[in-house]
Amino acid sequence: MNTFGRNFRITTFGESHGVAIGVVIDGCPPGFSLSESDIQPFLDKRKPGQSDLVTPRKEADRVQILSGVFEGKTLGTPICLLIQNTSMRSTDYDELRELFRPGHADRGYMEKYGIRDHRGGGRSSGRETAARVAAGGVATLYLAQYGIRIFGHLLQVHGETTPEGIEKAIRTARDNGDSVGGIISINVSGCPPGLGDPVFGKLDAFIAYAMMGIGGVKAVEIGSGTMAADMNGSEHNDQMTPEEYLSNNAGGILGGISTGQDILVRLTIKPTPSVRAVQKTIDIHGENRDISVHGRHDPCIAVRIVPVAEAMMALVLMDALLEQRKIFPGFLKES
Amino acid sequence: MNTFGRNFRITTFGESHGVAIGVVIDGCPPGFSLSESDIQPFLDKRKPGQSDLVTPRKEADRVQILSGVFEGKTLGTPICLLIQNTSMRSTDYDELRELFRPGHADRGYMEKYGIRDHRGGGRSSGRETAARVAAGGVATLYLAQYGIRIFGHLLQVHGETTPEGIEKAIRTARDNGDSVGGIISINVSGCPPGLGDPVFGKLDAFIAYAMMGIGGVKAVEIGSGTMAADMNGSEHNDQMTPEEYLSNNAGGILGGISTGQDILVRLTIKPTPSVRAVQKTIDIHGENRDISVHGRHDPCIAVRIVPVAEAMMALVLMDALLEQRKIFPGFLKES
Amino acid sequence: MNTFGRNFRITTFGESHGVAIGVVIDGCPPGFSLSESDIQPFLDKRKPGQSDLVTPRKEADRVQILSGVFEGKTLGTPICLLIQNTSMRSTDYDELRELFRPGHADRGYMEKYGIRDHRGGGRSSGRETAARVAAGGVATLYLAQYGIRIFGHLLQVHGETTPEGIEKAIRTARDNGDSVGGIISINVSGCPPGLGDPVFGKLDAFIAYAMMGIGGVKAVEIGSGTMAADMNGSEHNDQMTPEEYLSNNAGGILGGISTGQDILVRLTIKPTPSVRAVQKTIDIHGENRDISVHGRHDPCIAVRIVPVAEAMMALVLMDALLEQRKIFPGFLKES
Amino acid sequence: MNTFGRNFRITTFGESHGVAIGVVIDGCPPGFSLSESDIQPFLDKRKPGQSDLVTPRKEADRVQILSGVFEGKTLGTPICLLIQNTSMRSTDYDELRELFRPGHADRGYMEKYGIRDHRGGGRSSGRETAARVAAGGVATLYLAQYGIRIFGHLLQVHGETTPEGIEKAIRTARDNGDSVGGIISINVSGCPPGLGDPVFGKLDAFIAYAMMGIGGVKAVEIGSGTMAADMNGSEHNDQMTPEEYLSNNAGGILGGISTGQDILVRLTIKPTPSVRAVQKTIDIHGENRDISVHGRHDPCIAVRIVPVAEAMMALVLMDALLEQRKIFPGFLKES
Repeated sequence: MNTFGRNFRITTFGESHGVAIGVVIDGCPPGFSLSESDIQPFLDKRKPGQSDLVTPRKEADRVQILSGVFEGKTLGTPICLLIQNTSMRSTDYDELRELFRPGHADRGYMEKYGIRDHRGGGRSSGRETAARVAAGGVATLYLAQYGIRIFGHLLQVHGETTPEGIEKAIRTARDNGDSVGGIISINVSGCPPGLGDPVFGKLDAFIAYAMMGIGGVKAVEIGSGTMAADMNGSEHNDQMTPEEYLSNNAGGILGGISTGQDILVRLTIKPTPSVRAVQKTIDIHGENRDISVHGRHDPCIAVRIVPVAEAMMALVLMDALLEQRKIFPGFLKES
Repeated sequence: MNTFGRNFRITTFGESHGVAIGVVIDGCPPGFSLSESDIQPFLDKRKPGQSDLVTPRKEADRVQILSGVFEGKTLGTPICLLIQNTSMRSTDYDELRELFRPGHADRGYMEKYGIRDHRGGGRSSGRETAARVAAGGVATLYLAQYGIRIFGHLLQVHGETTPEGIEKAIRTARDNGDSVGGIISINVSGCPPGLGDPVFGKLDAFIAYAMMGIGGVKAVEIGSGTMAADMNGSEHNDQMTPEEYLSNNAGGILGGISTGQDILVRLTIKPTPSVRAVQKTIDIHGENRDISVHGRHDPCIAVRIVPVAEAMMALVLMDALLEQRKIFPGFLKES
Repeated sequence: MNTFGRNFRITTFGESHGVAIGVVIDGCPPGFSLSESDIQPFLDKRKPGQSDLVTPRKEADRVQILSGVFEGKTLGTPICLLIQNTSMRSTDYDELRELFRPGHADRGYMEKYGIRDHRGGGRSSGRETAARVAAGGVATLYLAQYGIRIFGHLLQVHGETTPEGIEKAIRTARDNGDSVGGIISINVSGCPPGLGDPVFGKLDAFIAYAMMGIGGVKAVEIGSGTMAADMNGSEHNDQMTPEEYLSNNAGGILGGISTGQDILVRLTIKPTPSVRAVQKTIDIHGENRDISVHGRHDPCIAVRIVPVAEAMMALVLMDALLEQRKIFPGFLKES
Repeated sequence: MNTFGRNFRITTFGESHGVAIGVVIDGCPPGFSLSESDIQPFLDKRKPGQSDLVTPRKEADRVQILSGVFEGKTLGTPICLLIQNTSMRSTDYDELRELFRPGHADRGYMEKYGIRDHRGGGRSSGRETAARVAAGGVATLYLAQYGIRIFGHLLQVHGETTPEGIEKAIRTARDNGDSVGGIISINVSGCPPGLGDPVFGKLDAFIAYAMMGIGGVKAVEIGSGTMAADMNGSEHNDQMTPEEYLSNNAGGILGGISTGQDILVRLTIKPTPSVRAVQKTIDIHGENRDISVHGRHDPCIAVRIVPVAEAMMALVLMDALLEQRKIFPGFLKES
């Protein structure tokens, strides 16, 4: 289950502190211009160490195209993108070899597999998302040809909704060796109507699947989201005229199919679980232990999930676009 | 995309006002006791006409096993469950042949397929969920053998959280020819640790996919859900002792893998889009029209989504259980 | 694993002597004319009792469309086709409840599942192929719109290659209570170039998978087939001019992709395992038994596999055609 | 479609003359001992330049494990195996940039994708099979734990069946700048009964799919194979006693399920299409051209397909073994 998508399929691999991480993209249409320098900006946007609001870890995150591109064009064959792991201070994690960090996947991997790579979360590390961002970059570039654009924003952190308030909340958490949760929005403009398939291929269902599959996401809302609970039908329905919809409570998706309106998605991200406060936990022998996690951690992981969520949205839309072409030959053909 | 699941795969079929609806279950373990009378109670719980809070439509919803069961035991071969459509007053929908109802999938199907069955929503009708409930019933019975139990509840309607408040809110909406949204919870007890797969097979990602794939769901929350946005990491982390977890903000899932705690899920459901109020819409020719939807509709579809969401949860868990057995032979073997 | 195909997916269900057999087709393009009387001729061609060379069993095999078609056109939603089982003389099989027939799947089902429906082979019966033929009929009709046509022929039986020789060989086997094997060809004309995908989606690989999945098939050959073993490269290569290929040893497929030449496939079918001769076998208790199978059996199952293999070929091509449309929008669009 | 398998899924990538080729294995059970030196011998067996009967090209083919293994054990996470391309004399292929070689996939890729990597066949090159062999090696090692062993042999070349005859036939072809076809067998011992799933998951169907997906394979036979056409049922049936089957015409598979007997498969391989003889072809502009292919080619590709076919067999069995564990917890558990 390291593959995402039906038509534009990505398979990611790599542990946080292994040799490299990467992704194989299968199903990318041929003849599409693509180079390493096209993909690199997506990784640069995600990488840590760019401001004092995120982890000071440095990761070069240089993407290398191993296959599927020839003389600057995609071949239609699988595209393998590789990112070497260069900033691996595994010794940071030696004390975690036998300890399960609260709020982390440590114990789950051990209970599931009977074995785990304890260094930096191994496969459960946020580092794996670099591979998704690289693949999502390819999809984003492809969708842009048709005017489909994806915009992610940080909306709220610890109750704060202004840039200054958000910045202050993050700094406070960082200075306390603590962390804070947040809300981000991922919106899409230019999406054509007709994407998404009933009944188990609904566009919003795939979006929910894609987004909840990002570590730390605790809630996915489409359009009106949780506010729908307090509304009447007469108020929630998006009325139509020949020119437009008069509102967008649907969030651009009705019955699982895109309406052509902007797609509106909101994600709630939990606070980073790595905190300095002493917490109760157990070790691999089941014994009582106290833990205080040090090291270079993001005080608000929501900040860094924005480009990952954008990438996942691009992957969902790319997949739905190819799906629709099967039954509707000529759908969104390049002009 | 009418198939759900990797290991316990269900494929549903049937339009609301066609001959029948049904489901084929592929991958059910052999030798499991199953009869029509085992499945019928799940459908009875879902079917309309049971109180004055739901649509007075009568649907017999008798399930028939067409295959896969022999002398009272599953064969390991596909189980086809059929439900005849008996209460088909298609003429109710004649006036909707050319009209797109706001808040419905009508226009989306037309834009996607260029054709649609306008009678009662056709394939996008809530009626399709009877097939899911039948299949989910089989999964629920199987899981119960291992002590895994699923509980759905209506938590909130139009801001009300007490039974009387909720009842009143629904009656008011019904009397006004309007509808109301709501929030339901779907919890699981007895789930073993180790279910769910990183990175694109996360248990919470599949739950989000399954739940957002139910018509009308606008938000899916796991554990702390949207409240995580306002929390600190030191507060959100679920500390552990050898005996137990000290809280359950994770909602029973960490890193996409079940922890063994109760699984806690919350869904927000939009108000039923069929309302009596006159609303602006367009017809299939793109012309301005006014619409007022009459007929036998649920004033609060959240009520009736409870058994559907329970069924989807059972399907997700059943699938994850079989997946885990592949790598962990003997996992949850019957004793 | 009762589903075939990636894009035009069919899921069959039903035991030989259960209530009914059927198939759900998911992914059929919308707006395509389809009725029960369009599909029935495919089933009629397959059904037994049509000459004295096949089993005298009578099966009405009336197909019923349960979903996915509205006012004579496909909706793009799943098409369920149902065939009631009407000629069920289960008592024919009472003596087989505890006996494993040589050359049959009886023992395999028991060893795999620990349970089986012993009546007429249950799910392993050739009867299941009626569902494939119904689904294949839909694909065949769709492909015919583009001039793609499939032709199956009986080439050889027990060493005989003329109609009279073949007829005599079958009658002799029948009169002796024995059976004979044979070879059939399945050819395709009008197939466009470009169908099939490297490297695990090769058109010939899917054909081999589809054909070897028909009960009784022991060999699949493409183009030159087994004769290629004795050829030189200079002889086997199909030379090209701007107008045409000068030979067709490839059988219309090179590197897994259709060339536009006729697709040439040959299948070897084993003799029907149900024979009157007394043979050694064991029962479900592992005890020595003698068996002599009576009843209404085909003396040469190759005869009846022709329409099944045609159906499977149609399903493979239909699936590949939809696949190609994803990357090549407008591929084989209706003019 | 560069992914093979349902449970033990491999995704290969890489063009013949690109930077590297490789494979991602998803679904390998955790806790299994694995190192680069365990896998290397499988690649060594496949690599060219080992005798004067195969191409004198030198390919180092050193495998590198990029992920999924930690401290000598598999983690249950995806295993990426990488093989750098070191012997890339792309200039050998400059004259082929505009030319379609007869018997090759050149023209098919161009017609399918509108673009191709002309260097050494790009993705259609036999070089891609090194990735399969590496993945198959992992499966082979896993299966060996349970006593399941796979044996490939060269049976026949150009009508010759003795080692000396075969050697002479290959040398003669090589000296003439020509090539020869052949037949190989792939047999399995120690396979437990119960592997394979009706009806579209038959073990023999997957074997046919896997084998026909190897470039150059023109026929796949199971057990009696093409000989079944001339046999009677009373002769073809494998009679049983409590101790054993009395023959193995089934080739170890009945009704798609393994019987526990040896699995017997035969493949016919076409002669290598790269020959020195002048042949008619066309170029990418559709013009008449003559072609004579020089360079370092295998005179009998059948020789080198043996380890590839062994690898594919291992992948099929590994996948079926994991599948069976889902419904039969504890199946083939390590003792």
